[in-house]
Amino acid sequence: MMKSISVGLLGLGTVGCGVVTILHNHQDKLMHQVGCPIKVKRVLVQDLHKDRMVKVDSSLLTTNVDDVIEDPEIDVVIEVMGGVEETRQHVLSSLRNKKHVVTANKDLMALYGPELLAVASENGCDLFYEASVAGGIPILRGLVDGLASDRITKMMGIVNGTTNFILTKMSKYGSAYDDVLKEAQELGYAEADPTADVEGLDAARKMAILATLGYSMNIDLQDVRVQGISSVTSEDINYSKRLGYTLKLIGMAHREGEKVEVSVQPTLLPDSHPLAGVNDEYNAVYVYGEAVGETMFYGPGAGSLPTATAIVSDLVGVMKNMRLGVNGRSAVSPQYDKKLKVNAEIYSKYFLRIHVKDQVGAFAKITSLFSERGVSFEKILQLPLKDRDDLAEIVLVTHKASLQDYEEILVKLRDMQVIQEVKSSYRVEGGGVA
Amino acid sequence: MMKSISVGLLGLGTVGCGVVTILHNHQDKLMHQVGCPIKVKRVLVQDLHKDRMVKVDSSLLTTNVDDVIEDPEIDVVIEVMGGVEETRQHVLSSLRNKKHVVTANKDLMALYGPELLAVASENGCDLFYEASVAGGIPILRGLVDGLASDRITKMMGIVNGTTNFILTKMSKYGSAYDDVLKEAQELGYAEADPTADVEGLDAARKMAILATLGYSMNIDLQDVRVQGISSVTSEDINYSKRLGYTLKLIGMAHREGEKVEVSVQPTLLPDSHPLAGVNDEYNAVYVYGEAVGETMFYGPGAGSLPTATAIVSDLVGVMKNMRLGVNGRSAVSPQYDKKLKVNAEIYSKYFLRIHVKDQVGAFAKITSLFSERGVSFEKILQLPLKDRDDLAEIVLVTHKASLQDYEEILVKLRDMQVIQEVKSSYRVEGGGVA
Repeated sequence: MMKSISVGLLGLGTVGCGVVTILHNHQDKLMHQVGCPIKVKRVLVQDLHKDRMVKVDSSLLTTNVDDVIEDPEIDVVIEVMGGVEETRQHVLSSLRNKKHVVTANKDLMALYGPELLAVASENGCDLFYEASVAGGIPILRGLVDGLASDRITKMMGIVNGTTNFILTKMSKYGSAYDDVLKEAQELGYAEADPTADVEGLDAARKMAILATLGYSMNIDLQDVRVQGISSVTSEDINYSKRLGYTLKLIGMAHREGEKVEVSVQPTLLPDSHPLAGVNDEYNAVYVYGEAVGETMFYGPGAGSLPTATAIVSDLVGVMKNMRLGVNGRSAVSPQYDKKLKVNAEIYSKYFLRIHVKDQVGAFAKITSLFSERGVSFEKILQLPLKDRDDLAEIVLVTHKASLQDYEEILVKLRDMQVIQEVKSSYRVEGGGVA
Repeated sequence: MMKSISVGLLGLGTVGCGVVTILHNHQDKLMHQVGCPIKVKRVLVQDLHKDRMVKVDSSLLTTNVDDVIEDPEIDVVIEVMGGVEETRQHVLSSLRNKKHVVTANKDLMALYGPELLAVASENGCDLFYEASVAGGIPILRGLVDGLASDRITKMMGIVNGTTNFILTKMSKYGSAYDDVLKEAQELGYAEADPTADVEGLDAARKMAILATLGYSMNIDLQDVRVQGISSVTSEDINYSKRLGYTLKLIGMAHREGEKVEVSVQPTLLPDSHPLAGVNDEYNAVYVYGEAVGETMFYGPGAGSLPTATAIVSDLVGVMKNMRLGVNGRSAVSPQYDKKLKVNAEIYSKYFLRIHVKDQVGAFAKITSLFSERGVSFEKILQLPLKDRDDLAEIVLVTHKASLQDYEEILVKLRDMQVIQEVKSSYRVEGGGVA
């Protein structure tokens, strides 16, 4: 029986404070599960005198990282400082000093996950990162343990709370993107610089982590095709609704045969799709397995306490392994070499909104451009355009087309004399719903 | 490194065949995860010559259970034969013969779970039962590992596919209960004798298992208050909709302070509740944790392949433990003594539909019965009754009332001269929607 476990924290922002709070509030439950007390021994901070949401004995605080990662009594390092390059060095040093590491850092794991996991394994240490994807939702455990025996072929995720909040409000109130973004910033759901969220980069990092685990293949961040939501308009959302779809920012990781496609893009889902009802700042990951069929994991994607819950659950995992003496053995190295689909192998339906000059034969010219490449339409909507009687608005939903054909069509469309503007173009997911 | 793992199957019905199929189809992935092949060594069947969905070498089949549970070479017994008393003996014998056991048997676990887990632990064996609740959804792992560090205060489950199928169809098409039940039977979603499903017993067994794990307390089947759906009418569903609710059969396990309440009953959920959108034969478990907030696990609740997936995932867990030499140590005995709420401590809102004689002062008499006990109304709907001009239909939604007060009111209501009939009464969950 161990006397107690000593934990060192790198960072004491909102998530770090959440970890301290949970360790304090749930001491009994944790003690019952792991058989010994957990003690926070040292905390790396930037400013020793800052006011914080939790009380931490000032003697525990330090501004010198070595006080944490070189302390021989510290068993587990919890990394909640964020950042990538410097943080990577701290995590590597911790592992080489035989300290287990729990992190919530998706940027770090998306960029250096394979390297860090290998070093952890060499040093007999655990490196857990459940909190890095979808905050409080235990999705990584679900993939690794719960669906261990199944072959997963599709993962679709709403894995960014900021963009889901914005799209939900736009859809509910018909508001404009800029207004909702401002509201989200005021509420603290969006950063002052929202780029990483609204341009899909945050979601892309999480999808790289999910795809790597789910398909047992090293998927890098640059393997993910990314399109954000900053150009989504209320018109796009209204037309989506009218056609029976909900517009969401969807991270998609699709496997067919041995090849994989990973992307993040605004996507129209049939209203009946389980992800279509995931609203506000909530996240969800939809997983399709050959045997199990459809499953979905839903919950808060961020927030200090949900994220801290995932971190402390990982800490419990580390401690159970310590008790059993089996740390560093749970990571399984990727089973497959990376094989990505090329554009000619990526098939999907598309939503397209264009402004067309009101000329005889205009529509025929457009359709022939599609039919030359064998692409036909599932839905067509043509409407006069308010305030412009020389233009018409056309909304098309195609049947399945390869990304290569579709991109060629888009280039040619933009060149056509009868086209005034291609307003928007999104992927469409799922079956033949209204 | 182990040479191979030998598995014995008790039963070869649809789930058993699913297990054989998955072990066969996913041999590579399983091998990669556990480092050695899995071999089905012996299978207990009732009839050696029956046609089955999978090919199993006839030399593996036996009608003598001892060929499985006494075989020294068999490492893991997978119990998919169903039944309780006889099955309990087989599981006990297997554990005493130092064989790990994986079971999908909710009846067995709801009735004898604590005993079987104790015997497993004494013998250094694993006893895993993920498949016993919500089929393919890895909810037990979610509770035990994913939310390990949180304090769960509420679990609500749609944990019976048959009743969810029936209620979904009734709601979608306005059909009568009997007609939909018949359709469900024809489609194979309901048994010829549907009692265990439609009267809520199957759901109650699963809630006993969930509550035991989630609250670390031995909750028995008889601790679960149960009301089924056989008396739900299309009128009830129509009124629910009109008031902004969806009627579902909800298993509820609620903890306040140290006390717990567990029930299964038709419940009105606000349309915006994550469980309200769980339709057809799908299951979902909604979990509220103090730190994490709302999470939900969604997926197929039954079916041979989803259930078999959960079984094989458990088998992978057993094998990982074997490789690490740590079997029988993962079960944590309950932390708390059982403390159940009494009726005076169970608070809820209620939906009530009554037929009232059209007399002066009738409504005043009814409301005074409620107000005497301090119970007020959130919503009131009074309508004339088709074909009966001497009666009116009144639908009430109360504010929160204790179950004790509410049951007393119901008894008195039924005795009132102005009441022609109390048609229905259901629990109402959640906030002030519509």
